[in-house]
Amino acid sequence: MTLAGLPPSLVVREVGPRDGLQAEAPVPATARARLIEALLSAGVREIEVAAFVSPKAVPSMAGAAEVLAAIGPRAGVRRWALVPNRRGAELAIDAGIDGLTVTVSASETYSAKNVRMSVADSVTEAVHICETAGPGVPVDVVVSCAFGSPYEGDIAPAQVASLCRVVLDGGATQITLADTTGMASPRRVDDVLALTGSDVGLHLHETRGAGLVNAYAAAQAGVRRFDTSVGGLGGSPFAAGATGNLATEDLVNLCDDLGVETGIDLERLLAASAVAADIVGHDVPSRVAAAGPRSRLAPAPPG
Amino acid sequence: MTLAGLPPSLVVREVGPRDGLQAEAPVPATARARLIEALLSAGVREIEVAAFVSPKAVPSMAGAAEVLAAIGPRAGVRRWALVPNRRGAELAIDAGIDGLTVTVSASETYSAKNVRMSVADSVTEAVHICETAGPGVPVDVVVSCAFGSPYEGDIAPAQVASLCRVVLDGGATQITLADTTGMASPRRVDDVLALTGSDVGLHLHETRGAGLVNAYAAAQAGVRRFDTSVGGLGGSPFAAGATGNLATEDLVNLCDDLGVETGIDLERLLAASAVAADIVGHDVPSRVAAAGPRSRLAPAPPG
Repeated sequence: MTLAGLPPSLVVREVGPRDGLQAEAPVPATARARLIEALLSAGVREIEVAAFVSPKAVPSMAGAAEVLAAIGPRAGVRRWALVPNRRGAELAIDAGIDGLTVTVSASETYSAKNVRMSVADSVTEAVHICETAGPGVPVDVVVSCAFGSPYEGDIAPAQVASLCRVVLDGGATQITLADTTGMASPRRVDDVLALTGSDVGLHLHETRGAGLVNAYAAAQAGVRRFDTSVGGLGGSPFAAGATGNLATEDLVNLCDDLGVETGIDLERLLAASAVAADIVGHDVPSRVAAAGPRSRLAPAPPG
Repeated sequence: MTLAGLPPSLVVREVGPRDGLQAEAPVPATARARLIEALLSAGVREIEVAAFVSPKAVPSMAGAAEVLAAIGPRAGVRRWALVPNRRGAELAIDAGIDGLTVTVSASETYSAKNVRMSVADSVTEAVHICETAGPGVPVDVVVSCAFGSPYEGDIAPAQVASLCRVVLDGGATQITLADTTGMASPRRVDDVLALTGSDVGLHLHETRGAGLVNAYAAAQAGVRRFDTSVGGLGGSPFAAGATGNLATEDLVNLCDDLGVETGIDLERLLAASAVAADIVGHDVPSRVAAAGPRSRLAPAPPG
């Protein structure tokens, strides 16, 4: 039957405070900390809270250490930060980070455009970051364009799997495969997982509306970790429109009705989503944020 | 494996010219005919083209006979029209319709609010319409709120299946189950199909972003007919925001990458979607309409 293969639970890593806010106009560190608190109150236990990048290059991510200091360490919570290089890794570790995310791309052209580095050079940098992190701090290498590139088109699954092996051999703790511009489908997810194995995270986008169906197919295929963004904020700057990350509330709403435990309370998550909308100053793209959970009934009509 | 159970092909019934345009400001019959022509050019073979309803009650559907006359009969194409009663059925048959769609609801409160009739009365009317149609004109009874009601909440699958049996016994040719306000999930689809069988159509909504995942799960469970709306236009007036019908281009884009044949050419469909946006005077909610098919690559960046 269809529902065979769905797991009793999934790990949802919230990336809104970093990936979601990165493309927005800068939001003060205190407001970002408020969003993080709201997300933790909803039951989020894995969360990307900051990026240790040049505030000149990425003004929206300025004050990463302040955000971490405001939140502090939390029992049972892993706070992740994106770092682009060893210097960023050192700063993040000094600030007490629990885990590092590092991006490499499966697409040469995307890599050149996004970080002005070849894939090989970014892998070298990722390995240096792993060395800097040492055994105490996990490093999650996020492979962008893992299901296709807007420049090269299809990326061979063998190429993605080979890249994963190289970074794991280089010291990465875990891999996350990102559908950066929304080119994945269940078939393509299956094709890639057949070569990488299902012990990966998935970072899905709604660019073509297929975030949930890809998550569902991946869960059927054994994937247990998903990156999502509160409100569906964020997404590739190369994907136009309100078509960013898979929204945390959309995935949690689905999981709730599938009986798949996420540990996240949907009503509290929607409260966090309202905080996100408040601090960015506009509605968020999530459809569940707009419509509410399926369990929220309308008042009966009069008469 | 995940992809087991997917069929080689699906039948996509386009409902945009009726369901999609019904909630919009009135569009002239000639413009609606232009949209239908564009959809037929894309390969659409089942299409809901009009509603034979009171033009006073539903001004956007005025001129149904004109639309049918402008299109004319087409070999290999079934043109459907929504009819609310025997009078509508007679008018549609006089105008040369190929099939009738009739709505009944699995929700008493939704039925009262939407058509001011009890479910039992609307079933009686549907049976009268089947008698009017006779053996020459197929009647598709669309069961709204089949996966939940915004008023009563969950609807027991046995209640939905019982309603289906009554209308089939009453002469309906086929059944379509509608997720009117976006309350379905793959589990709920499975639960209903377990009692109705999979020889039903599905009419899915994106209210909570789950249109594609529900279509995917239903296809895995044996469903072969789907109602979709070009651009994602339409949807329940009781579901706020750009959260209407599953968009035809979003489903076709997914099917193309899954290797599931729909007979619809995506680029031509996107041209029809542009016609839809033109005649309603605003962007359509479909994400593939905004992002383009996954195969449409970006120009390589300079340097």
